[in-house]
Amino acid sequence: MLNVAGREIPVFVEGFGDVAPFDGMSIAERRARPATQRRPGASKVVPDLRTALVECGVRDGATLSFHHHLRNGDQVMNTVLAEAAQLGLRNLSIAPSSIFPVHAPLVELIKRGVITRIYTAYASGPVADAIAAGLLEQPAVLQTHGGRARAIESAELQIDVAFVAAPTADDYGNICSVTGPAACGPLGYATADAQFAKHVVAVTENLVPYPAYPVEISQEHVDLVVCVPTIGDATRILSGTTTVTEDSCGLDIASMAARVTEAAGLLRDGFSFQTGAGGISLAVARYIQEAMQKKKIMGSFASGGITGQIVEMLERGLFRTLFDVQCFDLRAVQSYRDHTAHQRMSSSLYANPASRGAVVDRLDVMILGASEIDLDFNVNVTTASDGRLIGGSGGHSDTAAGAKLSIVTTRLNARANPKITERVRTLTTPGSTIDVVVTEAGVAVNPRRPDLIEALTQARIPLLSISRLHDLSLMAAGRTKAEQPATDQDNRIVALQQYRDGTIIDVLRAATHGP
Amino acid sequence: MLNVAGREIPVFVEGFGDVAPFDGMSIAERRARPATQRRPGASKVVPDLRTALVECGVRDGATLSFHHHLRNGDQVMNTVLAEAAQLGLRNLSIAPSSIFPVHAPLVELIKRGVITRIYTAYASGPVADAIAAGLLEQPAVLQTHGGRARAIESAELQIDVAFVAAPTADDYGNICSVTGPAACGPLGYATADAQFAKHVVAVTENLVPYPAYPVEISQEHVDLVVCVPTIGDATRILSGTTTVTEDSCGLDIASMAARVTEAAGLLRDGFSFQTGAGGISLAVARYIQEAMQKKKIMGSFASGGITGQIVEMLERGLFRTLFDVQCFDLRAVQSYRDHTAHQRMSSSLYANPASRGAVVDRLDVMILGASEIDLDFNVNVTTASDGRLIGGSGGHSDTAAGAKLSIVTTRLNARANPKITERVRTLTTPGSTIDVVVTEAGVAVNPRRPDLIEALTQARIPLLSISRLHDLSLMAAGRTKAEQPATDQDNRIVALQQYRDGTIIDVLRAATHGP
Repeated sequence: MLNVAGREIPVFVEGFGDVAPFDGMSIAERRARPATQRRPGASKVVPDLRTALVECGVRDGATLSFHHHLRNGDQVMNTVLAEAAQLGLRNLSIAPSSIFPVHAPLVELIKRGVITRIYTAYASGPVADAIAAGLLEQPAVLQTHGGRARAIESAELQIDVAFVAAPTADDYGNICSVTGPAACGPLGYATADAQFAKHVVAVTENLVPYPAYPVEISQEHVDLVVCVPTIGDATRILSGTTTVTEDSCGLDIASMAARVTEAAGLLRDGFSFQTGAGGISLAVARYIQEAMQKKKIMGSFASGGITGQIVEMLERGLFRTLFDVQCFDLRAVQSYRDHTAHQRMSSSLYANPASRGAVVDRLDVMILGASEIDLDFNVNVTTASDGRLIGGSGGHSDTAAGAKLSIVTTRLNARANPKITERVRTLTTPGSTIDVVVTEAGVAVNPRRPDLIEALTQARIPLLSISRLHDLSLMAAGRTKAEQPATDQDNRIVALQQYRDGTIIDVLRAATHGP
Repeated sequence: MLNVAGREIPVFVEGFGDVAPFDGMSIAERRARPATQRRPGASKVVPDLRTALVECGVRDGATLSFHHHLRNGDQVMNTVLAEAAQLGLRNLSIAPSSIFPVHAPLVELIKRGVITRIYTAYASGPVADAIAAGLLEQPAVLQTHGGRARAIESAELQIDVAFVAAPTADDYGNICSVTGPAACGPLGYATADAQFAKHVVAVTENLVPYPAYPVEISQEHVDLVVCVPTIGDATRILSGTTTVTEDSCGLDIASMAARVTEAAGLLRDGFSFQTGAGGISLAVARYIQEAMQKKKIMGSFASGGITGQIVEMLERGLFRTLFDVQCFDLRAVQSYRDHTAHQRMSSSLYANPASRGAVVDRLDVMILGASEIDLDFNVNVTTASDGRLIGGSGGHSDTAAGAKLSIVTTRLNARANPKITERVRTLTTPGSTIDVVVTEAGVAVNPRRPDLIEALTQARIPLLSISRLHDLSLMAAGRTKAEQPATDQDNRIVALQQYRDGTIIDVLRAATHGP
């Protein structure tokens, strides 16, 4: 047969198969990632979010995703969902990487049935309260950061439209995140969304001439660009960090965690380290820094959400590189912009258990927090002891599973609540991945780690059993027996705690309110 | 039911569905990209290529891919395939992004049936001769750079093992391409392979402590790392460039191409530009540079394989950014390492027609070469007039399709061969995507572009019809009629020229050798 260019083409070629003749207009449709065809070179800017929702074909029951790099300053999720409600959409699933108090307006949309399902790795504030109260029609799915990437990449979680808050963008969808008023550093939590969602919309307050650079998320992933007056309150975007703890109890715990690290033999050249941004964690980082300087050690990398304190360790030559999924302060953003050694990581590179090797798998030491920890070393960072939803795993389960040494630092009690319990109210991170618990009263090592028990004993670190810590915890809280608030096993399931591999590790049931 | 962590988990949750209980060992297998599970944190280094082939489960009939960033200095493809032959493997398909004269040893493997099928975007040298001679058992598939990315991402071309020549790597598979003796800049042609192949092997001569940085291809994509004495001859890696043409005929053509660009109204702020690394192309870039300086224009980007000459334009502020798929010289490598504005692009971002917008779609002007061009403006860059396979599209069809103005520059004749022919011997790039032909005898505009004809006429650029150029071309070659070497339509098909969208635009048949 002749193709449209007038060449004689067989309909079948031995060793090749059926031949699709050139017709000047074909577009291959089989594709691992969905493609949206737009006229080559045409601008992707549409006038408003409503147009974007319509052009993406959003219907009742669609799944919309968001990311949390703007943290408690984010305005994008609220604005998009208000517009969706205006359009009369109902029964939406949302998949934000995290939810903060700023997202309080969504509670009304949950009550009205606009939002009926939530997938997220972390939730705090009014929306978390609404989930725990069972206001959602369907149970929420609480993920881990790495598990969320896995779910998206595996098509377990299929996103219809990903909305990417873009500090800076151009008319063809290149997103830059180190310039503009809301510059926030790496967009690690939005990467899987941008790569795998059926449609991707960049929402920006700072449209610049093509091409926006350096590119954080590239035009090849973005369908539409919408300009809005603001994507968030810059003063609250980088408010995630607390300051280093000052109280002597916290400092004792931090100092002991650093000693445990050293006693475990990990504080050597090539050392790798991650910690959160809480007060005790920041104090641990400071003690580790002192120890590294004293021993003249150069570490290989620090990872995680990155703070100015970790940047300082990079700049002092204590680490060769950083892997940064999200900046916690402005100094980190500047460092990411300026230093080649300060590298981005997507949440998949960070923590996806189904990849060919995540950064967490190369971690020596992870410093973790806990709402509760129990006799099996199981950790709860999902609920408070009274059942309120106060967070979720984030990267907790991921880093605990990957790190050679995962240390939980915790005070014995929070006022009248013991932190070491017989059984955690909600299981977030399995005890099989927790190695050490450090409290102000001493250190407990997981019996699964006899090597650690030996090393810490040799280093004259006072060890206690976890059940002894439990007793001390009860005493510190002024109790003789932990009170577990009743949860009727027949109560409705309001959320599932999903482990990073996609299995369900626990469920959250609606609270029982008296007889 | 109780999960292994002892939590009571329902087997089914309304609104969620069947529940997979946490079992401490599950790994989700559904995944858009295949995942290979290795023990977290374990080194990925294996002792040699043979072990890598065995560990990746390579069998007869497998498809192995390679990239051409080391150009005519590459030793990786030869070494891997020699090892495959040693293992007794047969019937292999290979999918190198390009093939060079250095790959001559593969001819013997083709003859022995070790290699029976080839997918590539460009082939020159003895392997190309072997393809044209029909030595392959199956017809070769000649792709475009963007079409190759499309084929890989769409699973039309399924790669069992991608071998990535890594100038520098660490034991966990992070690849850095700006350090080490074979530093070669962006690995744009290896990106789709690394993302979509079932297995990925990094082959390096420079193993460094974890993490290698800056990361060009990340650990999350790489299964195994193999150290070899050399990945290539560094002195030949960056030998792709020629020098700016010096002869007056070539300079006249280049100067006219620059005038056409200006007359088309594209030489304004935001101008974007790509050219090859041939002598006339480099001369065009020089004339464009002079014109931009004179008009005090700042362009938005230059793209493609990047030369030092283009880097100079970046450094002089003539372009804000570069999109670089492959460096052609050391100055480009240094610039890529040092300048944020000198950005990488994968071949998919460069030219994939099935993405949400490739860089070629934003090109204003593309300067193209041609082996032949015909009365319909069809271009042949695949074969010589005698039927020898001398290249293939590379990015030719991609940039022609994307650019607002695609200009073919060519002399009227190559010795006794007219370059403007009645009908190209092999159709690589359809005439519908070619706007202008510039020769030393004048300029022909595609009748599909009346707007251009008007603009160029107003700028007093002497226009001729393509058929007049054809006549002049015949005269210059000392012919009265073009001789088309006979090709029997019944001869065996030795290769298919695939257009970027996956359709077949032409076929190459075995030459007829006299009666």
